Amino acid sequence: MRLAAVQMAMSGDVDANVATAERLVRDAAGKGAHIILLPELFEGRYFCTDQRADELMRARPLDGHPTVDHFAALAAELAVVLPISVYEQAGQVRFNTVVVVDADGTRLGHYRKSHIPDGPGYSEKYYFSPGDTGFRVWRTQHATIGVGICWDQWFPEAARAMALQGAEVLLYPTAIGSEPPEPAWDSSGHWQRVMQGHAAANLVPVVAANRVGHEVGSPTEITFYGSSFIADPTGALVATAGREEEAVITADFDRDALTAQRAAWGLFRDRRPDLYGALTTLDGDTTRR
Amino acid sequence: MRLAAVQMAMSGDVDANVATAERLVRDAAGKGAHIILLPELFEGRYFCTDQRADELMRARPLDGHPTVDHFAALAAELAVVLPISVYEQAGQVRFNTVVVVDADGTRLGHYRKSHIPDGPGYSEKYYFSPGDTGFRVWRTQHATIGVGICWDQWFPEAARAMALQGAEVLLYPTAIGSEPPEPAWDSSGHWQRVMQGHAAANLVPVVAANRVGHEVGSPTEITFYGSSFIADPTGALVATAGREEEAVITADFDRDALTAQRAAWGLFRDRRPDLYGALTTLDGDTTRR
Repeated sequence: MRLAAVQMAMSGDVDANVATAERLVRDAAGKGAHIILLPELFEGRYFCTDQRADELMRARPLDGHPTVDHFAALAAELAVVLPISVYEQAGQVRFNTVVVVDADGTRLGHYRKSHIPDGPGYSEKYYFSPGDTGFRVWRTQHATIGVGICWDQWFPEAARAMALQGAEVLLYPTAIGSEPPEPAWDSSGHWQRVMQGHAAANLVPVVAANRVGHEVGSPTEITFYGSSFIADPTGALVATAGREEEAVITADFDRDALTAQRAAWGLFRDRRPDLYGALTTLDGDTTRR
Repeated sequence: MRLAAVQMAMSGDVDANVATAERLVRDAAGKGAHIILLPELFEGRYFCTDQRADELMRARPLDGHPTVDHFAALAAELAVVLPISVYEQAGQVRFNTVVVVDADGTRLGHYRKSHIPDGPGYSEKYYFSPGDTGFRVWRTQHATIGVGICWDQWFPEAARAMALQGAEVLLYPTAIGSEPPEPAWDSSGHWQRVMQGHAAANLVPVVAANRVGHEVGSPTEITFYGSSFIADPTGALVATAGREEEAVITADFDRDALTAQRAAWGLFRDRRPDLYGALTTLDGDTTRR
């Protein structure tokens, strides 16, 4: 099983971004990748830098979504699994959603981002309702995969929920970079380590695909720091991209060896769900429940 | 707040080990440490290498436990917080337990290891019943601390449960080294990264204190790999010990700055306990519950 992450810069032109993404997916497939991860919301600039009502109009229903349809055809042509991140319109609300396309082009289903950040430059609570699908996994032709979306990657609960459901690989499409109030603050190491921890704790490879480039909102600006990576099931980085350039990175794993390693280490056998009540609270107070 | 980890080798002589531990605690206190972590079961050799009924007789009740009493007096003398790891006899069963001693010598309570490993060289299920205290935190004079014991360190659930209850620091006394069936297998990087992940995900410092030395059981032998460390709240290693030598490592943290950083990053605000049902299962299947 060869995994790939695509790292790219986005312009304001959807067609151009889709073309760039397609070119890089073809590049990854040419390198033999079976599961290829594009960044979060790769159709356009990261519009959550500022709160603007006109940006809400970017959302589209999943049925007949042109970008999803485009990459479903490409997935079938190349026989690769493609999780596709889009801004979803659903009824009167909008979600940050990934549609999982199998290697024959079949849409296996979708996941709506559960954890929604909010802070200067990342005003996602303005644009997205918290996802209502829960954490999901899909039995694709190449592996059973779980997908979290950006901020989800900071939560061990999301990774564990997917691993418990049988995820052999965790995939995180992402858009993260500078913090507008603190230009000197670089969270890239923190961001990598928290996901390396998910890999290590669940004994699964983790793939993170981030964007690069400096994007100018109105007025907020962010420099996305790339640093896309693939971690092995002990959390070690086995493939990394730089902070500024377009990139396709890959890493190989043996599914049977992963399964055997996960069993041998014994972690899942020894969990204590009877003691995890605090995790189902926000404040850690189990006495009121 | 200055944190310290003590790394040491153990002999078969309890008095000698207690004396070594005391010497190193005095060393750490001399370096200004406020909270000092000794390794797991530092009174003796790691007896879980083999299943021997005579080793069960090592367990002692916590009331009047001579080693706990010894270090409670030392804690009061030095005004330091000391979590003390012992083999506890309780009724007809035995636990792998830490007694938390505050900086005035008061016993604040105890925690019984929740996650019990079992594998070649680490036959802990033979010696310890799975802990029944649940994860706990203690408001010591120097910080609110949570303590997990060795195998607990592999479980994001334990770290999160302590963080949710207000832990400002997570402490892990440990005994880990080579895997007898696989002499070439070195888990030290995996072991560090999973705990670095807990620090990063919970925005708290993590301290791990391991033993060193080659111990010969009957017949199983283990070389403990040290590598004790302190991670900062982004998961970066800020102090590390070597693989073979006795060591005292320290790192400083500003409690107010930690609290502010934890709030600013917003992770705890954005958790989704409504979606974490799978975590309260062993097999990830929530449909049968």
